[in-house]
Amino acid sequence: MMKKIYLIFFFCSISLNAQKEETVKSKINDIYRQALTQGKSYDWLNHLTNQIGGRLSGSLNAERAIKWAKEELDALPLDSVWLQTVMVPKWVRGTFEYANIESSPGNTINVNICALGGSISTPSIGIRANVIEVNQIDELAKLGKEKIKGKIVFFNRPMQGDLINTFKAYGGAVDQRYNGAAEAAKYGALAVIVRSLNFRLDDYPHTGVMSYGDLPINKRIPAAAISTNDAELLSSMIALNPKLRFFIKQNCKNYPEVKSYNVIGQINGEVSPEKIILVGAHLDSWDLGDGAHDDGAGVVQSMEVMRFMSKKEFRPKNTIRVVLFANEENGLKGAKAYSKNVKNSKEQHLLALESDTGGFSPRGFNFDTKEKYLKRILSWKPYFDPYYIHLFEGSGSGADVNLLKENALVLAGLKTDAQRYFIHHHSEMDTFDQINKRELEMGAATMAALVYLTDQLGLE
Amino acid sequence: MMKKIYLIFFFCSISLNAQKEETVKSKINDIYRQALTQGKSYDWLNHLTNQIGGRLSGSLNAERAIKWAKEELDALPLDSVWLQTVMVPKWVRGTFEYANIESSPGNTINVNICALGGSISTPSIGIRANVIEVNQIDELAKLGKEKIKGKIVFFNRPMQGDLINTFKAYGGAVDQRYNGAAEAAKYGALAVIVRSLNFRLDDYPHTGVMSYGDLPINKRIPAAAISTNDAELLSSMIALNPKLRFFIKQNCKNYPEVKSYNVIGQINGEVSPEKIILVGAHLDSWDLGDGAHDDGAGVVQSMEVMRFMSKKEFRPKNTIRVVLFANEENGLKGAKAYSKNVKNSKEQHLLALESDTGGFSPRGFNFDTKEKYLKRILSWKPYFDPYYIHLFEGSGSGADVNLLKENALVLAGLKTDAQRYFIHHHSEMDTFDQINKRELEMGAATMAALVYLTDQLGLE
Repeated sequence: MMKKIYLIFFFCSISLNAQKEETVKSKINDIYRQALTQGKSYDWLNHLTNQIGGRLSGSLNAERAIKWAKEELDALPLDSVWLQTVMVPKWVRGTFEYANIESSPGNTINVNICALGGSISTPSIGIRANVIEVNQIDELAKLGKEKIKGKIVFFNRPMQGDLINTFKAYGGAVDQRYNGAAEAAKYGALAVIVRSLNFRLDDYPHTGVMSYGDLPINKRIPAAAISTNDAELLSSMIALNPKLRFFIKQNCKNYPEVKSYNVIGQINGEVSPEKIILVGAHLDSWDLGDGAHDDGAGVVQSMEVMRFMSKKEFRPKNTIRVVLFANEENGLKGAKAYSKNVKNSKEQHLLALESDTGGFSPRGFNFDTKEKYLKRILSWKPYFDPYYIHLFEGSGSGADVNLLKENALVLAGLKTDAQRYFIHHHSEMDTFDQINKRELEMGAATMAALVYLTDQLGLE
Repeated sequence: MMKKIYLIFFFCSISLNAQKEETVKSKINDIYRQALTQGKSYDWLNHLTNQIGGRLSGSLNAERAIKWAKEELDALPLDSVWLQTVMVPKWVRGTFEYANIESSPGNTINVNICALGGSISTPSIGIRANVIEVNQIDELAKLGKEKIKGKIVFFNRPMQGDLINTFKAYGGAVDQRYNGAAEAAKYGALAVIVRSLNFRLDDYPHTGVMSYGDLPINKRIPAAAISTNDAELLSSMIALNPKLRFFIKQNCKNYPEVKSYNVIGQINGEVSPEKIILVGAHLDSWDLGDGAHDDGAGVVQSMEVMRFMSKKEFRPKNTIRVVLFANEENGLKGAKAYSKNVKNSKEQHLLALESDTGGFSPRGFNFDTKEKYLKRILSWKPYFDPYYIHLFEGSGSGADVNLLKENALVLAGLKTDAQRYFIHHHSEMDTFDQINKRELEMGAATMAALVYLTDQLGLE
C-alpha cells in the first residue's frame, strides 16, 4: 500500500515537473511569437532614430530621447517610471572636419576624417605637417621625440581579421583611439590620425571616445579617425613619399557638464519586490549616424521586455526594472550614478542584463557570475534551442551593467551575430535602414526569455 | 614488465590521439584564418555579380558565367575541369511588367509586379478584371467557378512570421506561387497575382518558378508576383470596394530548350581517388537582381573550398569535386543530368555538400544521411565550436544534391543565419552590396572544414 502511494506520488511529481516544463516552454514560445508578430520594438526604433536621431550626451536630441522614452514607458503601463539625474559631459563636433593629403605643394587629395569624441579642435587655420605612421603605441618610445616632434602621428593597426569574435578584435585595436593622442603628445606630436575601427574597407570614418589621461590642458593635441580606405591610401602614399604633408581642420569643443537623466521604469514583484531583475541599454549615441544599432536596438529591446512583462499573464515574482542609461559612449556617467545609488540603497539585483551589441540575430549571452549561477543558467539552455540561441559564455557582460558587479548575482550581455557590427559602429552607417526587423525582435524575445526564466525559476 | 609496456603503449596512443586532434584543430583554424584574411570568394563574387550579373538559364549571362567559372577553376589549378552538357529551359521576361489597381474608371494606382518564371504573357493589351482574394488554394473549390470565372485570383497568404526557420515559412507559402495559376485556371480565372514571398513589407516583387502542371497550353493563364506593400494595399482596397479592377500586362515568353553546362572540377584523391567528396552550388540565378545571395555566394564558397584543397598542404585522400549546377531555379536540369551520370557510372560519393541559403553567417548544416554517419559527423561538432557553428540538423540538404540520395553516404546543406534571406531572394534586392565579406568567407571556411574532416577522418 505504502509502496503504491509512493509510486503515485512519484508519478505525480514527474508529471508535475513535466507539466511545469511544458508551461515554461509554451511561455517562451509565446514570447518569441508575440515579438515576431505583434512586436513594438521596430516601430519604437523607427521613431527613436528617424524622428529623433543621433543623441550625443548633452545634446538637444539626447533630451528629446529621454522625454520620449519616459512617455513610452509611462504608456505601457508600469508600476513606476522615473528619471535619475546624472551630470554628463558635453562635447560638440561643430562644423564637419576637413582633411587632405598634400603629396607635393598644390597637389592634394581630400580624405574622410571625423574628430574623436572628447578631442580638442585644431587652430582655426588647421594643422599641416609631415606624418609618421605607427602600428603600436609602443613604437612611439622607440622612435623618440626627435622623430615625432612637429609631426602628425598616424596609428594604422587594423582590427585582427581572423578573430571570429569581432568585439575581441575591437578590444585589440581600440587603444590607438583611446590613448593614442595622450601618448603621442608626450613626444611632441601636433595631432593624431587613427585608422577607423572597421574591418571593411570603405569611406566612412568612425568616431568614439578618446582620453587625454592626466595630460595638462596646454599639452593636448587634436585627434581624428580616418576611414579605412583613406588609411590605406595614406599609408601607401607615405611609402612612396615620406615627406608628404597632411592637413587637418576640426572645430569640436568640450563644454562644462550638463544635467541629464537615466530613464527608469519598473514592475513591482508580487513575491519578492525587493529583488530586482534589470534589463537595460544606453539611450545616448554618437552623433554621426542615428544610433540604430548602437544602442537604439538595445533600448527598444529593453522596452519590449517591459511590455511583455507588464502584460497580465506575465505578472512577475520579482521586480522587473528597465534602465535606459545616459552617457555610455563618453563617460559612463549614467551607469556610475545608477550603481552608486544601488550601493547606497543596498538594492539587491538578481540579474542585470544589457543589450549593446547591435540589433543583429541573437546568438546567446555573455555572463559574469559565480560558477553556481552560471551552472543554473546553463541548465536552461534547452529552452533556447528552438530559437537557435546557443552561446552561453562566461566572459564579461556590458559596459553599463558591469558597474553593478558587487550588487548583482548575475551580470549578462546579449550576444548577437556581430560580423557586420563594426561597419556601423560609431559612424554615419549606423542608421535605421540597416536594422532587420526580425533580428531585432528575436533579440528582444531572447532577453525576455532570460528574464522570464530568472524570475520564474530562480537562480538558486 | 608487461604492465609497464601496456602503460607506455596506452600513453603513447593517448598522446598520438591528442596530437592528431591538435593537428586537426590547427588545420581548421588555418582554413578560417585564410578565408578571413586571404580569401578569394568576395572578389570572385564581385566579378560574378557586377561584371556578369543575373544569369537566368538560357541567357547570354548564364553562358558568360559558365565560361568565367571554368576559367577560374582552370586557374586554381585542379587536376581536371570539364563541362557537362545539359539542356535547359529558356524563359524570357521581355519588357518590364506593368500593373495598376482601378478603384473607379479613370482612378488608378500603379503597383509593383513581376512575372513568375515560366508564366505566359498577357495579351498585348493586358488583362483588366475584378479581383478575388484568397488565402489558400483550397478556397478555390469552395468558391467554385461562378465566383472565379472571368476574374483575377489574388493569393495573399503571408509567410508565417513566428517561425524561426525562415525556409520553413517559405515552404509553407510557396504553393500559391508554384501551383496557384494551374489551380485557378481550372475555375476559369483570367490570371493570378501572388503575394511576394517576403516577410518584410516593401516595394519589391519576388519572382520564382511556377508550373502549369498538366494544364493544356490553351488553358494556361498569366501569373505574377506583387510586392508585399502592394499586396497589403490591394487587399485593403478590395475590402473597401470589391468591384475594383486590376490591370496586368506582361510579355514574357517560353522558348525551346537550349544547351547549357554544369561546370565541374576536381582534385584527385591520393588514397581513394574513386571516392568523391562533392561541394556545389547553382550558377544560374533569377534575372531581377544579380544573384549575389542566390546563389552566387554558394558558387564562390564552393570554388573557395577547391582553392583551399588544391594547396599543397591539403592534399586530400579522396577526390574533391566541385559542381556548379546549371538551372536550379527553373528546372533542376543540371542536378538531374549530374545525378543521372553518377548513377550510370556508379560513382561513389561520400559527401555531397551544397551551399544555397545565402551568403550570411554560417550556423551549421542540414544533413540527410543514415544515423551512423550523422553520429560520426556529430562527433566533430567540438571542432566547429570556436567558429560559432552549432546547428547540425538531420533534416534535408539542398535541391541540387538531393538528387544524389542513392549514390552518396551523406547529403548536406550549409545552414546560414537566414533571417534576412527572403528580403533578397528572387528579387531586385539580391545584389552584391547586400553581401558581408566576413559572413561570406566564414561560410566558405565552414564548408571547407566539413570537407577536410570528412576527407581526413572518414565517415566510418
